Amino acid sequence: MSGKKRIGITIGDPAGIGPEIVLKALLNHREIYDLCRPLIFAPVPAVERALDVLQSQARIRVIRSPSEWSGSGKESREIIVCESQISEPLPSYGQVSAQGGRMAFEAIRTAIDWANQKAIDAIATAPINKQSLKAGKVPFTDHTAMFKTLTQSQAVMTLFMTGPLRIFFYSRHIPFREIPASLNIENLVQTMEQALGHLKKLGLSQPRLAVAALNPHGGENGLFGDEEQRIIAPAVAQARKQGWNVFGPIPADSVFHLNLTGEFDAVLSLYHDQGHIAAKTYDFYGTVSLTMGLPFLRTSVDHGTAFEIAGRNKANERSMVEAIKIAARYAW
Amino acid sequence: MSGKKRIGITIGDPAGIGPEIVLKALLNHREIYDLCRPLIFAPVPAVERALDVLQSQARIRVIRSPSEWSGSGKESREIIVCESQISEPLPSYGQVSAQGGRMAFEAIRTAIDWANQKAIDAIATAPINKQSLKAGKVPFTDHTAMFKTLTQSQAVMTLFMTGPLRIFFYSRHIPFREIPASLNIENLVQTMEQALGHLKKLGLSQPRLAVAALNPHGGENGLFGDEEQRIIAPAVAQARKQGWNVFGPIPADSVFHLNLTGEFDAVLSLYHDQGHIAAKTYDFYGTVSLTMGLPFLRTSVDHGTAFEIAGRNKANERSMVEAIKIAARYAW
Repeated sequence: MSGKKRIGITIGDPAGIGPEIVLKALLNHREIYDLCRPLIFAPVPAVERALDVLQSQARIRVIRSPSEWSGSGKESREIIVCESQISEPLPSYGQVSAQGGRMAFEAIRTAIDWANQKAIDAIATAPINKQSLKAGKVPFTDHTAMFKTLTQSQAVMTLFMTGPLRIFFYSRHIPFREIPASLNIENLVQTMEQALGHLKKLGLSQPRLAVAALNPHGGENGLFGDEEQRIIAPAVAQARKQGWNVFGPIPADSVFHLNLTGEFDAVLSLYHDQGHIAAKTYDFYGTVSLTMGLPFLRTSVDHGTAFEIAGRNKANERSMVEAIKIAARYAW
Repeated sequence: MSGKKRIGITIGDPAGIGPEIVLKALLNHREIYDLCRPLIFAPVPAVERALDVLQSQARIRVIRSPSEWSGSGKESREIIVCESQISEPLPSYGQVSAQGGRMAFEAIRTAIDWANQKAIDAIATAPINKQSLKAGKVPFTDHTAMFKTLTQSQAVMTLFMTGPLRIFFYSRHIPFREIPASLNIENLVQTMEQALGHLKKLGLSQPRLAVAALNPHGGENGLFGDEEQRIIAPAVAQARKQGWNVFGPIPADSVFHLNLTGEFDAVLSLYHDQGHIAAKTYDFYGTVSLTMGLPFLRTSVDHGTAFEIAGRNKANERSMVEAIKIAARYAW
């Protein structure tokens, strides 16, 4: 048995750019095979169609069970596909469709089955489409819900990685105007604890976590906003009393720079755009999303299905490549 | 007369890192002399002390009037200083002091006089200290107030430049929780108009301005916040009706990337950290602040006096170098 991690890669919505970025990742970035053993979860016709789009002569090997995979080809650079569904015709590129939603889900469900059985070590996911899921009556609205339920996990947490940036989020999809009221000491301390735990899971033995401020210049001692004084600083103080390596609140326009320079290992951002602006302005295509709190690591590209360019060999595969590499590097 | 722009450089608080970053800029980045004719505004002892700190043998030439400068040395790479004050002893490095505040102000006042007389074309400023200004009873709290009053300007506006990023701010030093209520259509349209005018002043004949969204994903059609639908989109529509090249609202985690790739020439950010996080995570030391709306261009480093490292030859001069180069490039 090779020491390389076994990484499942789900194809995403077959009508989107998922199939082509997964194949471009494996065909154009052969170093991936030095880092891990990749296994695509997909309906085979979706993979074949994407190879046509890429004008690739690559052959694929189809398997259906872990025993078919583990026995052979460990060191080869084959495109190996775990067939996840064959009973419906492929949707056209760029179209929302019930079968696209179902195919995307079936590939994910199969990959999670494999991971639950420890037949793969981590999963990197290509993008799915919410409307297709809905049309296909898939009982989940997004990846996170699928992974959480199908692994019976309690609390999951998103971590962005972009180069040296590691960014957690205190809140995500809430209206901007509700952000200040969402802050409280107890939840902040709990979020810090979870974040530190996840960093340790990723191999950092003594992680240093910086907490971003909310107001400009961190409020300048209450001059422009007092959440730092009322909530964030007391939360950090409480965390530090427990011996945790937590720092802040640090003005948001410096804190990501200080993660980049190595002063801190990770940043707890207080709201969606605070962390997203940093990650995606720093390296738009290099941003990978990790779902922590599952029994295994799940990584994901940080973009959508891009129906408008699907099937045209225009999609940039970099985020997919990074998602696979980060899965290979940090899987446990 | 050389075609090079004449750039005044104010030394900032003499107890801070201003003197050493100005001299490091001119001594270590000789290409500045190919781009412009720099003239330092400072008390001469502050310059001499900074040369000692840098262990430089460079000689300085002191002048007191435009006629002394324009007549000679145009092509040389001398360190030329316009003496702005001599009557008080220098403050120690790292100390808040009344004379530090007065010296900083006197250098700025003198440079503005020269610019008002068109003896220099633009001014690049090193950092000043608010507490020293206050101790020195200087009747201004910051650079912007000094420039606005001493040039009798009406509306001034800050523009950040960091590499290809050009970022305007709808609001700056207000509490985070007041940001949503600060938005209204009329002010947004007015800010867009001003921003477009300033971009034209900088030489962009048909500037394309993107307006950032407020909520995550731009609110996803009202799912997380409705300011896009109620305020920002109508403001953009109103601007476009007037034939302006304005776009948006565009989710904040994409809009800066789209400025970097050239899709847009500039971004109107809605609040301080939205634009600051983008600029300073992208290139912390490369961020230059421009004050637009004055009769001449003023550029500034985007950092403070850093008293804690002043006088130790530790300060990074890159932002100062960029501030001088941008002044040279865009002065009109």
